[in-house]
Amino acid sequence: MIPFNKPYISGNELKYIEDVISSRELAGDGKYTKKCEEFFEQRFGFKKAILTTSCTDALEMAVLLMDIQPGDEVIIPSFTYVSTANVFAMHGARIVFADCKSHFPILDEESIEELITSKTKAIVPVHYSGVSCNMERIMEIALRHNIFVLEDAAMAINCHFKSSKNEVHNLGGIGHFSAFSFHDTKNVSSGEGGLLVINDDRFIERAQTIRDKGTNKKSFLNGESDKYEWVDLGSSFSPNEITAAFLYAQLEALDVIQEKRMEIWNEYQFQFNDIQYLGFELPLIPSYSESNGHVFFIICDNKNRREKLIQFMRKNGVKLSFHYNSLHKTKYYLKENKLENIPNSEKFSDCLVRFPIYPELKKEDVRYIVSIVREFFSN
Amino acid sequence: MIPFNKPYISGNELKYIEDVISSRELAGDGKYTKKCEEFFEQRFGFKKAILTTSCTDALEMAVLLMDIQPGDEVIIPSFTYVSTANVFAMHGARIVFADCKSHFPILDEESIEELITSKTKAIVPVHYSGVSCNMERIMEIALRHNIFVLEDAAMAINCHFKSSKNEVHNLGGIGHFSAFSFHDTKNVSSGEGGLLVINDDRFIERAQTIRDKGTNKKSFLNGESDKYEWVDLGSSFSPNEITAAFLYAQLEALDVIQEKRMEIWNEYQFQFNDIQYLGFELPLIPSYSESNGHVFFIICDNKNRREKLIQFMRKNGVKLSFHYNSLHKTKYYLKENKLENIPNSEKFSDCLVRFPIYPELKKEDVRYIVSIVREFFSN
Repeated sequence: MIPFNKPYISGNELKYIEDVISSRELAGDGKYTKKCEEFFEQRFGFKKAILTTSCTDALEMAVLLMDIQPGDEVIIPSFTYVSTANVFAMHGARIVFADCKSHFPILDEESIEELITSKTKAIVPVHYSGVSCNMERIMEIALRHNIFVLEDAAMAINCHFKSSKNEVHNLGGIGHFSAFSFHDTKNVSSGEGGLLVINDDRFIERAQTIRDKGTNKKSFLNGESDKYEWVDLGSSFSPNEITAAFLYAQLEALDVIQEKRMEIWNEYQFQFNDIQYLGFELPLIPSYSESNGHVFFIICDNKNRREKLIQFMRKNGVKLSFHYNSLHKTKYYLKENKLENIPNSEKFSDCLVRFPIYPELKKEDVRYIVSIVREFFSN
Repeated sequence: MIPFNKPYISGNELKYIEDVISSRELAGDGKYTKKCEEFFEQRFGFKKAILTTSCTDALEMAVLLMDIQPGDEVIIPSFTYVSTANVFAMHGARIVFADCKSHFPILDEESIEELITSKTKAIVPVHYSGVSCNMERIMEIALRHNIFVLEDAAMAINCHFKSSKNEVHNLGGIGHFSAFSFHDTKNVSSGEGGLLVINDDRFIERAQTIRDKGTNKKSFLNGESDKYEWVDLGSSFSPNEITAAFLYAQLEALDVIQEKRMEIWNEYQFQFNDIQYLGFELPLIPSYSESNGHVFFIICDNKNRREKLIQFMRKNGVKLSFHYNSLHKTKYYLKENKLENIPNSEKFSDCLVRFPIYPELKKEDVRYIVSIVREFFSN
C-alpha cells in the first residue's frame, strides 16, 4: 500500500530533543523556539515570527491582535479548513464567504470588493497548496478600504508571489499577519505546530503580551516593569521546547525536503500531462506563483467519478485523499445562515482529489500511481 | 547556587519519543495521548480526560463547554494565575473576585454565596499548591444555585479532598470540569501541557468536537457521519505525540516523583517548625486535605521583609520565588473596575515566598536553606 502521507524525518530531531532534555529547559519560548523564529525572520524576511502550538492558534492570535468584535465581518474563501473561519466565529464575527477561481482553489480576488461593507474588518486569502492568491490586487483592495489582510499560509512554506513589476515577495510576508502550519501532513512538521508572522510593527509588542497569556512577562523579565501582572487578553500559545527542537531539525532540512517534493510533483505533472485527454482537469497555477510540492491534485468531472477513482486506487494499493467541504454548506454555518451558491468552491469540494506526495515517495511509485489512474479513466 | 526548580526526568522520555518518531505518527490524539488520558481516568477515576497543549487551553475548553457568554458572571479567587480569569474575560464574562482563607491561599468557601447573582454561571476553586478547597461546601452551594464548578487543579495532581463523612475524593474528579497543568514547574511536566477532565456525561461528546477544531472528525472516522465538516465552535487543543510521549514517561514515574517531593516537603516542614517563633507564618493546611509536595512556602509579615529575605537567600546561593499579584489589583482588571479590598489575597500576594522543591534536592540542601532562613530572621 502506498500511503497518502509519510512525515519526513531529517535525522537530527532526536539529537536536538536530547539537548533540550539535558538542559532541563523544557518550557516554551526557549533556545529552539528562538532558533525557529529567527529562521523564518532571516530566510523569508518576516518582521516578527512567533511560534505557536498550531496554525489555528496563530490565526487566533491574529484575531486578538485585530481586536475582532461581535458583528465585525470577515471575508474568507469557502474552500478552506474549518479553523480559518472558526477563529473568527469564536469572537462573534460574521463570516462572509467568497468564491475561489474556476481553475484553481484560491480566493478569486475579483469577487472580494462586492462583499466589502462598512463592517468588514479583515480578508483572509488562503494560499491553497502553497499557490499564492493575487496578493497585489488583494493588498490594493484591502488598503483602499482600510481592512486587515491575514494570509492563511498553512500550506505555504517557501512560496512566493511575483508582482506585476516582477518583484518577488515571500508568502506570509505580504499581509499584516500570516499563519503557517507544521501539522503532520505539512512539508515541514512537528506533528502539531504553527507560526504567527507579524509584518506590521504596530502589533509586535502586543503579540508578545498575548502570547504570554496576557501578562507583561517579557517587560518584567527585561526589568521594564516592576511587577509581573495581568495586562491584556491572551492565552498560552507557546509550544514546549521539545516541539521546537523537533521543528528546528526539520527547518534545517527545508531545502532537501523541497527538492525531493518538487521532484515528485514535477513527475506527477509530467505523467499526468500525458493522459489529460482522458477526462479530468489538471489545476492551472497562475503565472505569479509556483507550487511548493505540498499538494498534487487533479479535478474529476463529478463527485461520483472521484469516489470511484478513490476506490479503484485503494483496490490497487494507493491511498488518495480529498477536502474541504465548502464551509458555506456545513452544518454549523447553515444553522444561522441560508444556503448560498458558491459554484467554484463547490466544484473543488466535490471533485478535487489529492495524490500521495512526500520525500520518500519514488519516481517509479508516481509512474505506477499514474498508470493506475490511466487504467481507471480508460475504462 | 540552588535553583528554584529543576524539572524531573524519569529516563524513559527519549525512548518513547524515539518510538513516536519511528512510527511516523506525530500528530495529536495518537497512541501516547490515549495512554496519558487512560492513566488519569484509571488512576483517579475521572470520567473523561482530554490532553491539551496547556492548562490554559484546558480551561478554555471548559469555558466553551459551559457556553460562557458576554455578561455572564464567574466567581474566582483573586489569588491565582492570570489564565484562570483570562479564559473567561476572552468570552466577555464579568469576573467576580472572591477572597481566600486567612491561613491558606485557597478560596474561602464562606465568601462565595454573597457573590452569587442570577447571572453567575461558574465558580472556579483553585487548589493552590495542591491543597484542596472545601469541595463539599462548594459543590453544595453550586448545585443549589445551578452553577458549574470548574476545578483549577493546575497544581493538584495526586491530591484529594476528605469529606465530612470521611470519603476521599480525588481532586479534579469532583467539579463538573477540572484542568491540570504540566508546565515546566509542575510535579509532572511536559514543558508546556495540560489536561481537561470532564466529570459530567452531558459534555463528553461535545468536548471531542471542540478539541477537534469544531469538526465531527471523530464520528466521521467512526463511520457515524457521512462527511467531515464544521459542526461547532472549537480550536486546536491537542498536543503532538512527542509531547504526549514525554508526559507518559513522567506519569509512569508519578509515585517516585511524589515520594521524593514529599520527603523534601516534610523535611522543610520539620526544619521550619523549629524556628517558627522567629517571626513568620507557616501555612495551615485544612484537615480535609494534604500537600502533594508541589510547593513549600512561608508567609512573611510584610512585603519589605519578603524582599529582603529573597535578597539575603540569593546572596547565600538560594533562589526563592513568589506569586501571584492579586488579579483585582492588576492593570487589566482596573481598566474597567474600581479597586476593591480583598485582604487575605493581598496578604499572600505581598508576603508568600516559595522555596526550592524538586526531586533532586537533597535533605542536606533543605537543612542548609533553613539554616540561612534562621540566620536572616535572627538578625
